[in-house]
Amino acid sequence: MAERIAAVGAGLVGRAWSIVFARAGFEVALWDPVEGAVEKALGLVDQALPELAEADLLRGATPAETRGRMRAAASLADALAGVVHVQESAPERVEVKRGLWRELDAAAPADAVLASSTSGIPASAFTEGLKGGARCLVAHPINPPHIVPLVELVPAPWTAPETVERTAALMRAVGQRPIPLAREVKGFVVNRLQGALLAEAFKLVEDGVCGVDDVDAAIADGLGLRWSFIGPFETIDLNSPTGVRGYCEMLGPLYYELAKEQAEARPWGAELVAKIEAARRARLAAGDITSRAQWRDRRLAHLVGAKAEADRKFGQ
Amino acid sequence: MAERIAAVGAGLVGRAWSIVFARAGFEVALWDPVEGAVEKALGLVDQALPELAEADLLRGATPAETRGRMRAAASLADALAGVVHVQESAPERVEVKRGLWRELDAAAPADAVLASSTSGIPASAFTEGLKGGARCLVAHPINPPHIVPLVELVPAPWTAPETVERTAALMRAVGQRPIPLAREVKGFVVNRLQGALLAEAFKLVEDGVCGVDDVDAAIADGLGLRWSFIGPFETIDLNSPTGVRGYCEMLGPLYYELAKEQAEARPWGAELVAKIEAARRARLAAGDITSRAQWRDRRLAHLVGAKAEADRKFGQ
Repeated sequence: MAERIAAVGAGLVGRAWSIVFARAGFEVALWDPVEGAVEKALGLVDQALPELAEADLLRGATPAETRGRMRAAASLADALAGVVHVQESAPERVEVKRGLWRELDAAAPADAVLASSTSGIPASAFTEGLKGGARCLVAHPINPPHIVPLVELVPAPWTAPETVERTAALMRAVGQRPIPLAREVKGFVVNRLQGALLAEAFKLVEDGVCGVDDVDAAIADGLGLRWSFIGPFETIDLNSPTGVRGYCEMLGPLYYELAKEQAEARPWGAELVAKIEAARRARLAAGDITSRAQWRDRRLAHLVGAKAEADRKFGQ
Repeated sequence: MAERIAAVGAGLVGRAWSIVFARAGFEVALWDPVEGAVEKALGLVDQALPELAEADLLRGATPAETRGRMRAAASLADALAGVVHVQESAPERVEVKRGLWRELDAAAPADAVLASSTSGIPASAFTEGLKGGARCLVAHPINPPHIVPLVELVPAPWTAPETVERTAALMRAVGQRPIPLAREVKGFVVNRLQGALLAEAFKLVEDGVCGVDDVDAAIADGLGLRWSFIGPFETIDLNSPTGVRGYCEMLGPLYYELAKEQAEARPWGAELVAKIEAARRARLAAGDITSRAQWRDRRLAHLVGAKAEADRKFGQ
């Protein structure tokens, strides 16, 4: 019999997680305290599955097979019965998570891992004192996880190493790419990297060096192309015939000079934010943000398919 | 008759530029002071063109048509005769460029733009005092420019605005994506953005938060996917139903806290570089760096083709 997983919270993130686990063969029980939320989520899943099958994002399963492995749980206890893993995707409010996690820890099987999708609240803020604290951690996806593979695994100080290892193994088994963090840090890894880039992007616009669209082009028509299949370290490794060492000997001093220029921490002031907002609204009307986000997800799905094709054609 | 362009310097960058201009219909004269360098470059172009045609990267021209628009110039004066634009891709040494640019300014037609491919030397360092200083600027590509469209246009203090405008128009006409900078800044825009990301990447490894491969995965299997077709500003604009303004209200304070944690400028020490080098060499032998860079360029070409397909299928 297939192993069971509980998806607790049936919003955008929980819904996407249920696809990740179900397409990989797990039986997924969805639960949400909001009346009708699970039915709504399953309806949206029904709508999404055919397009995912067409983009070859169901790991060979059909929409019907995938959907057949998902069910609406009658209660939280029902959702948790017999599961090996709980993926919590509740609202990002620590007091909500504290109450919910007491229930999860009390009701889930003693050997199930409890994972939170939170993008920024460390597990220590809502798992302290839980009897099963050692089996709790953060498993933060990049939205939407059924298209983007990365998952950050962030342990609390009391999380058992085995919990991280088991979650990493589960994530690899369902086709995600887990990265384990050694400890809790603010913003985890992904948002620390994003924050560093954004800080400089905001400064370039604030200082009048270039425009908002120009910064976006610098990445989307420039560096972002290679970053979509090799990361920043492999990028510099391949930019010198003698690898990272040669690159750092040649350019380390320049980057240190740059780092000193870039050191100032600047808040994003109202005037600057208004300038960037105006530039974005000139490109995309406020009423079109939601449909543009759907366009982004279609492009992401297409890109992930193209990467898989390139992996086959040219090697990984 | 087609307009003429001179590619001065026939190394990796100059060779790629000659493909950019020739496939778009310009007559390109290549010149290099090193004996045999142009013949070698044209031989490598002959090898590269069929694969570019297959990846639909010749703008509909055949390899023979593209190659037919390139010639080896007999001398610098021959290369410069009748050109509208000179793209200089000489070695990255300011004393080399100073001497060369005196020659370029003296011998090129008075109405030709002189552009340097330099990745880091500001135009003011080698065009000061030239009679034609107003027609000089930096046009820095992301390698290789026949695959990656972005070009940074960086004026010296004496560059005429018209020079930047004409170069931007030329770059758009040949299918590149120019971004004009308002003034010279260290590292220009692309390497300032890359530097900000690298600074945090090096710190995450130095501080033991995660490994080298994990940082690369955080980008290549995470944020880098969307950055390959929307930049950092559009990314955050689509991450809130109320756009950049809503995103900044919600997350600006967190990113300011992060920026304060990230403010310290750190040199890349020998021990840290050795650690990253060791992690990279465990993934890729030193002897395989060159062939891996060729693999990267094939993947880039495939990705650019996939982006064009997605543009047609889902809109830009």
